[in-house]
Amino acid sequence: MSDLKTRFLEVYSVLKSELLNDPAFEFTDDSRQWVERMLEYNVPGGKLNRGLSVIDSYKLLKEGKELSDDEIFLSSALGWCIEWLQAYFLVLDDIMDSSHTRRGQPCWFRLPKVGMIAVNDGILLRNHIPRILKKHFRQKPYYVDLLDLFNEVEFQTASGQMIDLITTLVGEKDLSKYSLPIHRRIVQYKTAYYSFYLPVACALLMSGEDLEKHTNVKDILIEMGTYFQVQDDYLDCFGAPEVIGKIGTDIEDFKCSWLVVKALELSNEEQKKFLHENYGKDDLASVAKVKELYNTLKLQDVFAEYESKSYDKLIKFIEAHPSQAVQALLKSFLGKIYKRQK
Amino acid sequence: MSDLKTRFLEVYSVLKSELLNDPAFEFTDDSRQWVERMLEYNVPGGKLNRGLSVIDSYKLLKEGKELSDDEIFLSSALGWCIEWLQAYFLVLDDIMDSSHTRRGQPCWFRLPKVGMIAVNDGILLRNHIPRILKKHFRQKPYYVDLLDLFNEVEFQTASGQMIDLITTLVGEKDLSKYSLPIHRRIVQYKTAYYSFYLPVACALLMSGEDLEKHTNVKDILIEMGTYFQVQDDYLDCFGAPEVIGKIGTDIEDFKCSWLVVKALELSNEEQKKFLHENYGKDDLASVAKVKELYNTLKLQDVFAEYESKSYDKLIKFIEAHPSQAVQALLKSFLGKIYKRQK
Repeated sequence: MSDLKTRFLEVYSVLKSELLNDPAFEFTDDSRQWVERMLEYNVPGGKLNRGLSVIDSYKLLKEGKELSDDEIFLSSALGWCIEWLQAYFLVLDDIMDSSHTRRGQPCWFRLPKVGMIAVNDGILLRNHIPRILKKHFRQKPYYVDLLDLFNEVEFQTASGQMIDLITTLVGEKDLSKYSLPIHRRIVQYKTAYYSFYLPVACALLMSGEDLEKHTNVKDILIEMGTYFQVQDDYLDCFGAPEVIGKIGTDIEDFKCSWLVVKALELSNEEQKKFLHENYGKDDLASVAKVKELYNTLKLQDVFAEYESKSYDKLIKFIEAHPSQAVQALLKSFLGKIYKRQK
Repeated sequence: MSDLKTRFLEVYSVLKSELLNDPAFEFTDDSRQWVERMLEYNVPGGKLNRGLSVIDSYKLLKEGKELSDDEIFLSSALGWCIEWLQAYFLVLDDIMDSSHTRRGQPCWFRLPKVGMIAVNDGILLRNHIPRILKKHFRQKPYYVDLLDLFNEVEFQTASGQMIDLITTLVGEKDLSKYSLPIHRRIVQYKTAYYSFYLPVACALLMSGEDLEKHTNVKDILIEMGTYFQVQDDYLDCFGAPEVIGKIGTDIEDFKCSWLVVKALELSNEEQKKFLHENYGKDDLASVAKVKELYNTLKLQDVFAEYESKSYDKLIKFIEAHPSQAVQALLKSFLGKIYKRQK
C-alpha cells in the first residue's frame, strides 16, 4: 500500500473516533457501538478513488511541493467527506433498488438487525460531513464555500437520482422515454458532479482558489465524468467479467444505459420494435437477442469512436487552460480512465 | 385565517416556484412535475406551528415594532425551512415505522407510483433547505451561522431518532432498556431541538444575536420541548380522542413513553412483571390491563405534579433572564403549551 493511502486510512480512524465522541450528542453505549459498526461496514471498504483524488489533486495544484502534515490531514479529511457522501448515497440507493450485495458483502439494510433503520443510518452518514467540516475547517476563510459546495453537489446528485428513478420506473417499462439527452442528464447529475467535480473543487478551495473563476474546470470534469459513466455502461455489457469483477445485468434491469440509448438512435423501425420486445426481460434468450442487435448495430465500433472523440475533445479543452498545474491535474484524471478495462 | 398566516402561505408559493426553477439543476418536465406534487403533498399540510413560531419569535424580539415586508418574508422563509426539515423527517420516519397515514392521508411512500422513491424524495426535501438559505441569506452576516445551526440540529434529530430506533427495536421487545434517562435523551434530541430551539435560534440570528451567548435560552427551550413531549405521551393514553383527533396506540406499539417509564419506576416486582407481560401486545385485554396498572399507580396525579413542577421551574428560569423581550418570547411559547388538552 502506498504511503499516502496508509496516511489516508489513518485519518479515517481519527475522524471516526471524533464522531463517536461528538459533544453535540450524548451517546449511549449502545448507540456509540451502533454508529461504529455502521461506519466500519459502509465507509472505508470501497476503492477510495474519489477520496484519494483530493490529496492527489491538491498536490498537483501545489506543483509537486512537499505537503505539510497539516495539509495531508486536511486534504484527506475532505477526501473522507466525499467517501462519507458516497456511503450515504449507496446505503440509500441499495434500499431503493432492493439490491442484495455491495462491495462483496450483503447490503447494510439486508442485515437482520438493521432493516429499515438503514434509512436513518444513511441520514447519519450525511450528517457526519458537516460535523467533520465544522471541526476542522470552521476557521478557514473558505469554510462557507465548502459548505455551499457540498450542499450544491448533494442537491445535484439527489436530483440526478430522481430523474433516474422516475425515468426507469420499473412499474411502467417504457423504452420510448430513453434518449441521449435524458441519459446525459442522469449521468451528469447523478455521478459526474460528486465523483469528478467535487474532489477537484475541494482541492481548489484548499488552495485558496475562487470556484466562480473555474467554471471551465467544472465543465471539463463534468464532461470527463460523463465519459466515465459511458465506459461503465459499455463495460457492463462488453467488459470481461473476470476483469470488471461482476457480471453485468443492465439489459435485464431495464437500465437507461448509453448502449440502449445509442441502439434506439441507430435502429430502424423493425429493430426498435425488437428492442422494445426484448429489453428489460430477465431471461437469457432475450438478453442474448439484445446483445445480438448491439452487434448488428456495431455498438463496439460506435463506442470506440465515441471514446477517441471524447478524448480528443477533452485534451483540446485541457490544453486551452492557462494554468500548467491545472492542466497537469486534469490530464492525470483523464489518464486514469482513458481506455480503462475495469 | 390570520393575516400573518396568509402571508406565510404566500411565501411558500414563492419558495416552491424558486425551487422548481433552480438553475443548479436542469429539470425535465416530468421531474419538475414530480417535485411539485411531492412538495404539495408533504410540506404545507401540517399545523405549521414550528414555521409560524419563527415570525412570532422575531416579532417579540423586535419588541412589537412593525416588521418590514422584507423581515416578514425572511422570517417566513426560515419558518418554511423548519417545515421542510419536518417534512423530510416525517417522509422517512413513516417508511421506517411502516406507517399508513399521516395528516389524514396515506403516507407518501404508500402511494402506488411512489414507493421507495420516497427515500430520495426525503433527501430532496432536505436538500431544498440549503437552496432556500443560499438564495435568500447568502449575503447576510449570519449566513454561515444559519448553515451551522441547521446542520447541528439535523444531526441531533437524526441521533435522537437513532437511539429511539435501537432502543425500541421491534424485534426484541425488552422493557428493561426503558428508563427515564433514556426517555429524556430520545425526546430531547429527536423532538426538542428542532421543534423548540430551532425556531427561536433562527429568530435570534435574524436579530443579529450570537447564539453562543444564549445557551441559557437553549436550555430553557430544550426543557420546554421535553415537557411538551411528556404531555404528548400523556395525552396518547389519557387525552380525549375527539379532542386530540386520534386514538393513541403507544401501549400496543411498545413505545418508550413517559408513562411506561414512570410506571416501571413506581412498580414493585410483581407489577413490573405484569407490565412486562402486557406492554406492547396488540390486543384490547392487554392494553386495558396496562391502563389499569397506570391507574393503580395514579399516573394521572404523577403527571399533574410533573406538569406543575415543570411549569414553576420554567417560569423561574425564564424570569431570571436579563432581557424582557426574550422573557416575553419564552413565556409566549410556554403559554401555548401549558395544560394543553391537544
